Amino acid sequence: MRLATLEVNGSSTAAVEVNGLFVSLPAADVGALLKQPDWRQVVEAHLADEPAVSVRDADYRAVIPAPSKVLCCGHNYSEHIRELGRELPPFPTLFAKFADTLTGPYAELVLDGESTEIDWEAELAVVVGAEVYKCTPEEASAAIAGYTVANDVSMRDWQRRTLQWLQGKAFDASTPLGPVLVTADECSPESGLAITCTVNGEVVQEGCTSTLVFDAAALISYISTFTVLRPGDVVLTGTPGGVGMARKPPRFLADGDVLVTAIEGIGELRNRVRMPVREPVLN
Amino acid sequence: MRLATLEVNGSSTAAVEVNGLFVSLPAADVGALLKQPDWRQVVEAHLADEPAVSVRDADYRAVIPAPSKVLCCGHNYSEHIRELGRELPPFPTLFAKFADTLTGPYAELVLDGESTEIDWEAELAVVVGAEVYKCTPEEASAAIAGYTVANDVSMRDWQRRTLQWLQGKAFDASTPLGPVLVTADECSPESGLAITCTVNGEVVQEGCTSTLVFDAAALISYISTFTVLRPGDVVLTGTPGGVGMARKPPRFLADGDVLVTAIEGIGELRNRVRMPVREPVLN
Repeated sequence: MRLATLEVNGSSTAAVEVNGLFVSLPAADVGALLKQPDWRQVVEAHLADEPAVSVRDADYRAVIPAPSKVLCCGHNYSEHIRELGRELPPFPTLFAKFADTLTGPYAELVLDGESTEIDWEAELAVVVGAEVYKCTPEEASAAIAGYTVANDVSMRDWQRRTLQWLQGKAFDASTPLGPVLVTADECSPESGLAITCTVNGEVVQEGCTSTLVFDAAALISYISTFTVLRPGDVVLTGTPGGVGMARKPPRFLADGDVLVTAIEGIGELRNRVRMPVREPVLN
Repeated sequence: MRLATLEVNGSSTAAVEVNGLFVSLPAADVGALLKQPDWRQVVEAHLADEPAVSVRDADYRAVIPAPSKVLCCGHNYSEHIRELGRELPPFPTLFAKFADTLTGPYAELVLDGESTEIDWEAELAVVVGAEVYKCTPEEASAAIAGYTVANDVSMRDWQRRTLQWLQGKAFDASTPLGPVLVTADECSPESGLAITCTVNGEVVQEGCTSTLVFDAAALISYISTFTVLRPGDVVLTGTPGGVGMARKPPRFLADGDVLVTAIEGIGELRNRVRMPVREPVLN
């Protein structure tokens, strides 16, 4: 099943894709849907509903617009870590984002001129579908609702101001998430899905989800050691090589750039960067 | 005004202190109260209500039990930074906690044996009372609802597993917060409040809130540059010198230890540490 959160006639609704069209579900968004313990049956009961409607890019919201927790893992693609000549890490590097950090899969990324080093990080995102606490990787795997696409757009100048990355990772509406959640029965990242990021059509990142050091189940199990995860919580699993910061010379996003983030079998984000020019102050 | 979140007859309520007793307010907790734009008038209208009841330690919950955002600042007491021979930082070091990380002011801190390096960090916490985004320090100051006490109890072994501190700072129910929120009109941390932490009666931290490098208004203004803050959001402002990790030899908390965290004019947290011994596995 492919689920989306859509804005229809001015109100938000969860929806399921049927032959390229969408059928509304009885929940305001996919996060609220997943909080219903029988969410799979709820979706199945609506698969044949009419009307199934076509949607425009502008109708999509972040597939989970208001998770109670968003955790992110850094340094998690083994091919990228090995290419840097580093050892594989014994523990995942984790940091948090806020629900406000998320935005729609086709939203403009309006950045306000505070940062001049805006960088891309294509990521597989895993969405929790059942409550877990101190669970094994096997239990974690069973609790996964599905997968979606994220770009952990990062303000490198802010990220490097201090040792803690949060302030470069938590600008409001800077992390697109979507367009759909593909349920775990139809999506198997551990068997290898191509993940790519392009800027204005040029491929800047290419990776494969089978090379994650900590896969989705391992991350959820590890995180659940210290905090409970609930339906609708989101874990970003890290980015492969090719970020702008690591290029020589470094390359960052500019006003008007189009960032496309794709994962095989899930879909793609397409976001234009907008950096409003500040009016000069005349004395 | 001194506000608390209490568990009364099995349900949660915001309350205001009147002569050492508490009067219930029409909100489930102080966070929900602060979301009412006229919250000051709501409280004032109830100050003379009957009955005013006495409460036991066990009745207190975290004063803000479910903030949408909890941000924390590290390295923020100038006397401690100077004692370490370091320069004052140009930017605040920020990381996040989850609402689940918070617990009551007199709750037992039940830690599950995953960590053997449990450390204390007495902190002034500031609570936001009005929505702010890209605000000046003056606007931030006007948006402060008040102040409370926190202990950012930290699992140093987990904190140091990777460069990002989150996993050592986000164990569920490890950060006591309370017992009361003292509104900003009655509390002035920038003019200097004593902050202390004791373990089993021995003073381990002593500081003064006037030596914060980034005071409450500066932190809120800075954070609001990248993310909106809303009523009930909480910012922990950092800890003075004297943490267990920095001692020679290092000192950590043990099963049964009583941690008392106090700020002059606000009140004190009193938390017993519980580390259940794991049953040995018999083969």
